[in-house]
Amino acid sequence: MRPYELIKAKRDGQPLPPADIRAFLDGYTQGDVTDYQMSAMCMAVFFRGLSDVELAAWTRAMLESGEVLDLSETKGLKVDKHSTGGVGDKVSLSLAPLAAACGVPVPMISGRGLGHTGGTLDKLESIPGFRVDLDVPTYRRLVKDVGACLIGQTATLAPADKKLYALRDVTATVDCIPLIASSIMSKKLAEGIDALVLDVKVGSGAFMKTVEDARTLGRTMIGIGREMNKKVVAVLTDMDQPLGNTVGNALEVIEAVEMLRGKASADYTEVTLALTAEMLVQGGKAKTPAEARVQLAKVIADGSAEAKLCDIVKAQGGDPSAIRELSKLPRARHTTTVPAPRAGFVTGIDSEAVGLAAMALGAGRAKTTDAIDPAVGFVLEKKMGARVQAGEALVTVHYNDASRLDEVKARVTKAWRIGDAAPAARPLILERLE
Amino acid sequence: MRPYELIKAKRDGQPLPPADIRAFLDGYTQGDVTDYQMSAMCMAVFFRGLSDVELAAWTRAMLESGEVLDLSETKGLKVDKHSTGGVGDKVSLSLAPLAAACGVPVPMISGRGLGHTGGTLDKLESIPGFRVDLDVPTYRRLVKDVGACLIGQTATLAPADKKLYALRDVTATVDCIPLIASSIMSKKLAEGIDALVLDVKVGSGAFMKTVEDARTLGRTMIGIGREMNKKVVAVLTDMDQPLGNTVGNALEVIEAVEMLRGKASADYTEVTLALTAEMLVQGGKAKTPAEARVQLAKVIADGSAEAKLCDIVKAQGGDPSAIRELSKLPRARHTTTVPAPRAGFVTGIDSEAVGLAAMALGAGRAKTTDAIDPAVGFVLEKKMGARVQAGEALVTVHYNDASRLDEVKARVTKAWRIGDAAPAARPLILERLE
Repeated sequence: MRPYELIKAKRDGQPLPPADIRAFLDGYTQGDVTDYQMSAMCMAVFFRGLSDVELAAWTRAMLESGEVLDLSETKGLKVDKHSTGGVGDKVSLSLAPLAAACGVPVPMISGRGLGHTGGTLDKLESIPGFRVDLDVPTYRRLVKDVGACLIGQTATLAPADKKLYALRDVTATVDCIPLIASSIMSKKLAEGIDALVLDVKVGSGAFMKTVEDARTLGRTMIGIGREMNKKVVAVLTDMDQPLGNTVGNALEVIEAVEMLRGKASADYTEVTLALTAEMLVQGGKAKTPAEARVQLAKVIADGSAEAKLCDIVKAQGGDPSAIRELSKLPRARHTTTVPAPRAGFVTGIDSEAVGLAAMALGAGRAKTTDAIDPAVGFVLEKKMGARVQAGEALVTVHYNDASRLDEVKARVTKAWRIGDAAPAARPLILERLE
Repeated sequence: MRPYELIKAKRDGQPLPPADIRAFLDGYTQGDVTDYQMSAMCMAVFFRGLSDVELAAWTRAMLESGEVLDLSETKGLKVDKHSTGGVGDKVSLSLAPLAAACGVPVPMISGRGLGHTGGTLDKLESIPGFRVDLDVPTYRRLVKDVGACLIGQTATLAPADKKLYALRDVTATVDCIPLIASSIMSKKLAEGIDALVLDVKVGSGAFMKTVEDARTLGRTMIGIGREMNKKVVAVLTDMDQPLGNTVGNALEVIEAVEMLRGKASADYTEVTLALTAEMLVQGGKAKTPAEARVQLAKVIADGSAEAKLCDIVKAQGGDPSAIRELSKLPRARHTTTVPAPRAGFVTGIDSEAVGLAAMALGAGRAKTTDAIDPAVGFVLEKKMGARVQAGEALVTVHYNDASRLDEVKARVTKAWRIGDAAPAARPLILERLE
């Protein structure tokens, strides 16, 4: 079918032959299918969806639009984790060394922060010297020798997705589950993984606002994995408040290292352990998540997880002494607190508002070209369920530039909801799909 | 709302404020809104539709993207007719002189043929010397002095529609009723009319395959007219076989002149009289269609309708003697017949197939840049309901170039369905909406 006919077929709910989907996406990558035809197709997909067979063909075409990394020289099953994005989501920083310390190789290609969500690459770059722009041969070597490597997207992986994402971003076709799923999966499968653990965030601060949507996204990605012969497990986790006690790049690295020492916030620790346990099972290092937890407890207790992080940092050009002595990480010159306006219980924290406040502080970026300040951010003193007195600190703000401080504090104050009664406890891990 | 937000709002079924629609279409005309945003919007409109208020704003923005002709120097209510397009549809050629002869000024901007449908401009140009590329001042003068003028689209009328139509044509968003309706209405209202009679063709050879779709299109255009303070009447007419007995440019002019002499095929005559009667009512020259019919019969009987056609031809640079003596029109060098493969009754004629056969013969064009031969075409000897003997002529083919004659004859043979029993008679005028 010609592009016109293919768009019309999708529009009218008729099945698209996989070979035609492939030709359409190849044509788009090469510029023969125009942006305006692709945007019409994406809008038709928004309304009509993609069948399992169509989605596999679509994902495969994006995957194979570029290089698919071959990590066969690394023994064992390579497993990565992908999160749909949240606020304070520093899971990758501790999960990668934990899994690697347990013998699961972790090839991880991450993104930068934009808008209210942070990015793993920005967090890693707050470690002095740490480089995320390694070339593919180095990446391949470090996965083999160190057991984990965390780098940024390269131009050669899934270029069709890069082009398509930019188009979807300006044509209101981003929040479409098959397009989200194929975008994530094409990039992740290009890394050279054997299995993937998905962290689908659910809640006010996440892309997926409801459990139903998150479940659909998880199932869709699992379906793609099945079609591609890759194991995918999805864990739905709560994002109705920021994860852990820190938001901001160096502050989150500190919390991640503390987690590897067994001393971090309960919610962040639990989400990290749950996801890493899945990786160990996927990677064949444990039969059950419970068995995996025992191993994880061991590499935390004996220091080998932290040692693995030091190895990773060193291999990627960073200063491992900044992990051993966290005071060597960038640190803001000033701190101030945001007081509770009234006494009561914290009944809710608007994650997106906290993320946007962090952006205003300089911890994140509004445009991809904005510079960020690695040292600034928030320490969350009172999370959901906590009892507060009027005037007690809700948040400690770490800042260098006071110019937007009033705005930042106002945003933070507004993000905290304080009520008279303690809220019902919410589960952190909402569901597991495979 | 920014373009992104407006696309998203339509996608999600939220109402679009008229001022934002206006800004979006103005931005598109000026190039600030991109083709890929517009194509995403059109696909969202395909699925979500446009409310009456949105459609009026959309149409008005396209109308006002260019010049709106002022015909106020011509007295009386100016009325035009628009047909959604069919095969053998030569109605305009006789309707315009008939209405003008009865005192209704007819400002008519027409199109060329493409694909299986013919175009009024091509038919007119088969009259030696006839020019359709007159400038706007001449057009305005001829509507006033002659009572009718038939020209082609100008670049200054509804340029947004021109740009949008080209985009819809390659993004599978053509067959979308609100977009069709706003496209037609913006062009027609730009002519400077007071009222419009719509001929909505229904059937296998038409754009609208069902009465339901045709009714929706008719009602949609009437709704736009109401919002714009213009009277619109829609007549649904049958297009399950070609209209009249001829398909081909000069051949159709001959049939049109014969109609003005009261000697043409019954179906073509009836559709023309029904539509022209509506124009007389809209133009205030008759109280009812029945009263209008009496006037039409008079201008046919006394020769003033044919005389008006001669005036129009002369005013537009053509040779009126070719109307008086039809043998002066282009005539093909050869004729041949397509015989009936069996005896029986004609139970159906595939109009689209006939149109495509005429295109293969050289009477129509596949691309806008193709040249056409004004002389060639078909005379339909057996229409629906006719009894035929095996070997009797179904069609007389007028041709100059024999190179594709076998293909043409095969297409024609296939277009005729012959059965054992006469088909039920079908009404020509299916419905009238106002």
